[in-house]
Amino acid sequence: MLESLLYPKTVAVIGASRTPGKVGHEILANLINGGFKGEIVPVNPSGEDILGLKCYPNLKTYGRTIDLSIISIPTKLVRAAVQSSINANAKAIAVITAGFKEVGKEGAALEGEIAELCRLNGVRMLGPNCLGLINTENSMNASFAKQMPKPGGISVVSQSGALCTAILDWAVAEDVGLAKLLSMGNKADLDETDFLTVLAQDPQTKVIACYLESITQGDEFLKAAEAAANLKPIVALKVGTSNAGVKAAASHTGSLAGADIAYGAAFQRAGVIRAYNFDALFDLAMAFAMQPMPKGDRVAIITNAGGPGIIAADAAENSGLKVEAPTPAIAEALKAKLPAAASVGNPIDLLGDAPPERYAEAVKAVLEDDSFDAICVILTPQAMTDPVGTARAIATASSGKKPIVTSFMGGHDVMEARHILKALSIPDYPAPHRAVYALRALCDYALWQNRPPRVVTRFPVNRRRVERVISRHMKTGRPEIGEVEAKEILQAYDFVVPPGRLATSADEAAAVAEHVGYPVAMKISSPDILHKSDMGGVKLSLSNADQVRDAYDLMTLRIGRRMPNARLDGVYIEQMAARGREVIIGMTRDPEFGPMLMFGLGGIFVEVMKDVTFYLAPITAEEAMQMLIGTRSYALLKGARGQAGVDLTSIANGLQRISQLVTDFPQIKELDINPFLVGPAGTEAVVADARMILSGVQKTDE
Amino acid sequence: MLESLLYPKTVAVIGASRTPGKVGHEILANLINGGFKGEIVPVNPSGEDILGLKCYPNLKTYGRTIDLSIISIPTKLVRAAVQSSINANAKAIAVITAGFKEVGKEGAALEGEIAELCRLNGVRMLGPNCLGLINTENSMNASFAKQMPKPGGISVVSQSGALCTAILDWAVAEDVGLAKLLSMGNKADLDETDFLTVLAQDPQTKVIACYLESITQGDEFLKAAEAAANLKPIVALKVGTSNAGVKAAASHTGSLAGADIAYGAAFQRAGVIRAYNFDALFDLAMAFAMQPMPKGDRVAIITNAGGPGIIAADAAENSGLKVEAPTPAIAEALKAKLPAAASVGNPIDLLGDAPPERYAEAVKAVLEDDSFDAICVILTPQAMTDPVGTARAIATASSGKKPIVTSFMGGHDVMEARHILKALSIPDYPAPHRAVYALRALCDYALWQNRPPRVVTRFPVNRRRVERVISRHMKTGRPEIGEVEAKEILQAYDFVVPPGRLATSADEAAAVAEHVGYPVAMKISSPDILHKSDMGGVKLSLSNADQVRDAYDLMTLRIGRRMPNARLDGVYIEQMAARGREVIIGMTRDPEFGPMLMFGLGGIFVEVMKDVTFYLAPITAEEAMQMLIGTRSYALLKGARGQAGVDLTSIANGLQRISQLVTDFPQIKELDINPFLVGPAGTEAVVADARMILSGVQKTDE
Repeated sequence: MLESLLYPKTVAVIGASRTPGKVGHEILANLINGGFKGEIVPVNPSGEDILGLKCYPNLKTYGRTIDLSIISIPTKLVRAAVQSSINANAKAIAVITAGFKEVGKEGAALEGEIAELCRLNGVRMLGPNCLGLINTENSMNASFAKQMPKPGGISVVSQSGALCTAILDWAVAEDVGLAKLLSMGNKADLDETDFLTVLAQDPQTKVIACYLESITQGDEFLKAAEAAANLKPIVALKVGTSNAGVKAAASHTGSLAGADIAYGAAFQRAGVIRAYNFDALFDLAMAFAMQPMPKGDRVAIITNAGGPGIIAADAAENSGLKVEAPTPAIAEALKAKLPAAASVGNPIDLLGDAPPERYAEAVKAVLEDDSFDAICVILTPQAMTDPVGTARAIATASSGKKPIVTSFMGGHDVMEARHILKALSIPDYPAPHRAVYALRALCDYALWQNRPPRVVTRFPVNRRRVERVISRHMKTGRPEIGEVEAKEILQAYDFVVPPGRLATSADEAAAVAEHVGYPVAMKISSPDILHKSDMGGVKLSLSNADQVRDAYDLMTLRIGRRMPNARLDGVYIEQMAARGREVIIGMTRDPEFGPMLMFGLGGIFVEVMKDVTFYLAPITAEEAMQMLIGTRSYALLKGARGQAGVDLTSIANGLQRISQLVTDFPQIKELDINPFLVGPAGTEAVVADARMILSGVQKTDE
Repeated sequence: MLESLLYPKTVAVIGASRTPGKVGHEILANLINGGFKGEIVPVNPSGEDILGLKCYPNLKTYGRTIDLSIISIPTKLVRAAVQSSINANAKAIAVITAGFKEVGKEGAALEGEIAELCRLNGVRMLGPNCLGLINTENSMNASFAKQMPKPGGISVVSQSGALCTAILDWAVAEDVGLAKLLSMGNKADLDETDFLTVLAQDPQTKVIACYLESITQGDEFLKAAEAAANLKPIVALKVGTSNAGVKAAASHTGSLAGADIAYGAAFQRAGVIRAYNFDALFDLAMAFAMQPMPKGDRVAIITNAGGPGIIAADAAENSGLKVEAPTPAIAEALKAKLPAAASVGNPIDLLGDAPPERYAEAVKAVLEDDSFDAICVILTPQAMTDPVGTARAIATASSGKKPIVTSFMGGHDVMEARHILKALSIPDYPAPHRAVYALRALCDYALWQNRPPRVVTRFPVNRRRVERVISRHMKTGRPEIGEVEAKEILQAYDFVVPPGRLATSADEAAAVAEHVGYPVAMKISSPDILHKSDMGGVKLSLSNADQVRDAYDLMTLRIGRRMPNARLDGVYIEQMAARGREVIIGMTRDPEFGPMLMFGLGGIFVEVMKDVTFYLAPITAEEAMQMLIGTRSYALLKGARGQAGVDLTSIANGLQRISQLVTDFPQIKELDINPFLVGPAGTEAVVADARMILSGVQKTDE
């Protein structure tokens, strides 16, 4: 796949220039200086030789076929260059030139044309408006970046060309190797989804580091990312996390979900490890590229200084890693090899004068000890310290069976040792907490890889009934589904709904109440009234026919006065639900990633504390339970301080049922079950109130 | 102050050695090579010349007086060396030698002896078990560190010598200057409190960076730190933050307070900026040393690349800085100077080909624009980028009126520019988020410096009454103060307590109830019953004399059966408090920092969500209000979603009153008012239940 882009035999540089500093010159120079072994075909109207290569005025003159065409000429000439590349049989085109979608409508139209031209001819396009690409395997620097990194296990996919230059510059300075670097630019054709799929299969790539500002096709991305993450780790830095852009939404669920939450949910589902800043992107990528996966989360800390050992232990405990004592027998054996003042706990303190051999003994002991899954080694450059010798000793002692990360602290005196560590595939970090967080990421990925198979339960339901309600709304142009019909839909998906019925007169109301049994609740039903109780449209705990008749008349009278134009469907009378804890379950459809389910404890927990969790639908039973466990208030549900817990399974089932509902009916845009009343273990949760909003409904103005 | 330690004219090195690698050799070599201008007196029994200096077998032979004595000889010889230094009139002694408190009891005793010897002779001691000290002002490297930093505005105070070596190595590699470096070792005499006081007055020191594992005298530290922070910023990394060591406590407040929370409260009170990791310690120190304070929190981001600009904007908004658009007039003027495609919003995007001049124009525009308080400049090393020229241009454009931080991203190509920036006093960071967080710290410090004067209100109270209750407990050996007496104490401090009285018979109970008025609550009163309601010892809402008599008899009967040995004082009958929201206010006494006040919403908010704030007593009215605002559930108190708010002032007053109470009575070790019932605005909060625990009570076994 993308063979012509990544492993071309012949590369044309359209816009190759003799003027140093010009992009067309830099690309050509980079291809030559990088050591690319294939044929390089400079194309420039002048036709003079450039950098010792024969140059052609156009591809027709060249006469033979090419695999990859790199285009760096003024925007308005790009279309013709793409066409001539296609004529020369190019199967991949990288458009470096800017001035397309990013500058406005006209540019976008031109970009669309070029992309379409490529598509029709079965040609894949990178860019436009990109830095190009680098493949260290075939020594191809087809970019205008100044640096060519050495080969290594990290592949970079970036939506920002400028960031690529920073990454390359960093990789060269840090002596970290890269496999491929792909600057995606405007993503008119090739995007993150394509590259995740290709890099997943690339033997040189051990980890994929992504910088993303947006994702083009959410569903395709999810599939590609999950498939890739099953094979190798993906670390992603997604920017644009601030909440300025959260849209106004009609439902609770919708108002709590922002784009950043959707990305978080998508990454979680797909197994993508999220980096929260630029440092972390490469901190984590280095660890993944260089070290094996841990079998668990118990970390041993080895140090020549107490303070930095505590720093590492703090970071480990704060990130949820375990810092436990070594197995006594192994501790004894190690102790015998160390000075008396050394401490064989965790951290293992080798003392300030620790020579390389002491480090090696400690690493070996920890590798042998089944109580540890990972190792963090810290060194401070003290008077007697031999950083270079220690780096070598650690690398030699390391077996490749447990991940090792190091933090050689300082700057000048540890510089050479840091380079040696990285050259020997031991990731080193300037501060202990960064080494520890890299281990944490390895653990997270190992957990995800070992997750149980995702089995989404399908409940037997009555789809027809839901179809009827929805098509009625479609026909009558009402996107809002109020309580009565929302409950009808939920009942069709086997939710427990208190018995009830709509009444359109006081007497009918009383009859319904007698039928369902007292006490009853009465709620006004109108497509125009969103907040029923604010309007005096709710009465609870009515216990006889007289009260029901009175309530009916009062309610309709008052609503008639307050909102004379509201359309009234009648009053809904239902049996009062048994008491229980109020939770909210809901769904909102993210424009990129589709249905996102929400769970939270009711009332203030959702509204004030914003203590909610989101997961992408469809979800499994385990994931539904994780949504509960993920809230801070979970302890309350489980039962805290003498209060009995609630039936967790009935909430988890509810989440799975709405997952199925919104997967079956993509017309449902938002959904709130609020409150969902959940009782003690063994009872079924009850839908006390619910509403939904449909998309794609043509509003009719009656 | 500490003149002899920091600016000695004559320095003796006791244990000076001819053998390179030995600590006594390294110190001497460092003093010489560092360029120390005073007299250096090597002392070694052999008496041979070392490194070209005349060496003396002992100080007596030397004959003249010394100012500072640096001791690096075997542990058992240290005492004598200290004595001989004192005899030679030394006013300061640095004991490098280890093997004291850190190795056990015997070492601790020896350390105590030496410290006492110094104290009696008016001599100050650094260490033992330390790296020594460095003062760049007089070119004195009196340490065995390998590096001598260049002069600069950061002074370092560290409890770990090993960390000092890492810091020095970092400073040399990063080209960052230091003023003083003080390795405190075991802190037998001189500690952080002393150094904060001295460095606050040191003109060379612009910021104090502290690494702390513990604090020796909490109250002295608080005073010294606050006084120092009033003059210059202090950044502290305190390690040992994990919660393993939280003690078991009898009160709610005590069980929620850990040592780390106490340090956090102490730093907040004293205006110490807390660094949460090793990177941050120097990220912040650099910004403080090099840049002026901002007047507000509105940051302008200037960049040559969109993606990194978004990274900075994300970090700014997530840390609470404002990222707003520039003033239109200034934006227009700047736009006229930039290419059409540049974007003059925030971030200001200068485009990928931005030359130094474009950066300079943007920086000047932002400096002129009153809508900005601080500037973050980002550069990625693209094809046309001139990092060195840009570094110079930024420094030249900078006026010193608003803080500027930069992030020149990458590694190799930006290295020289980074050094130039730092040399020109512009702090540069490897990633944009770190630059932004440094600005955040500047804002935090500016806010603290401009805080209103701390005026602690003193309420008129009845101290005598409290003294009586406490001395009664002292005499009878009962540390636990139950509800009845706790309420008596609180009433004496003007808390509103529902009227009530203890009764010892059913008839008396009825009489009390008639007197206080129905409905009443009844609670068993016994020093042996902590959880009254668990024991059936609470009855609420009793509305007539019969109910009260029945409740009395039933309660005493049942308690008698369940806890036949419990001492019963009787049953407390009180008027039911009006309903209100339940909050908890409390106090626990931290061993280092004294009384810490706690506030939290009642019930699950404290117990499950741990949504509480702590402040050190005594507190001001503003701080009390901050304790409320600092909780996540504050919105509930203020009134959220149609629910009315509560009287915030009555809670804040309650916190100030217990602040006064626990300051007046240091015997009170822990205190809970739980619940404190607070009603709508204009009402007084009521103490519904309370308990206290005294310290220093000799338990008597009756």
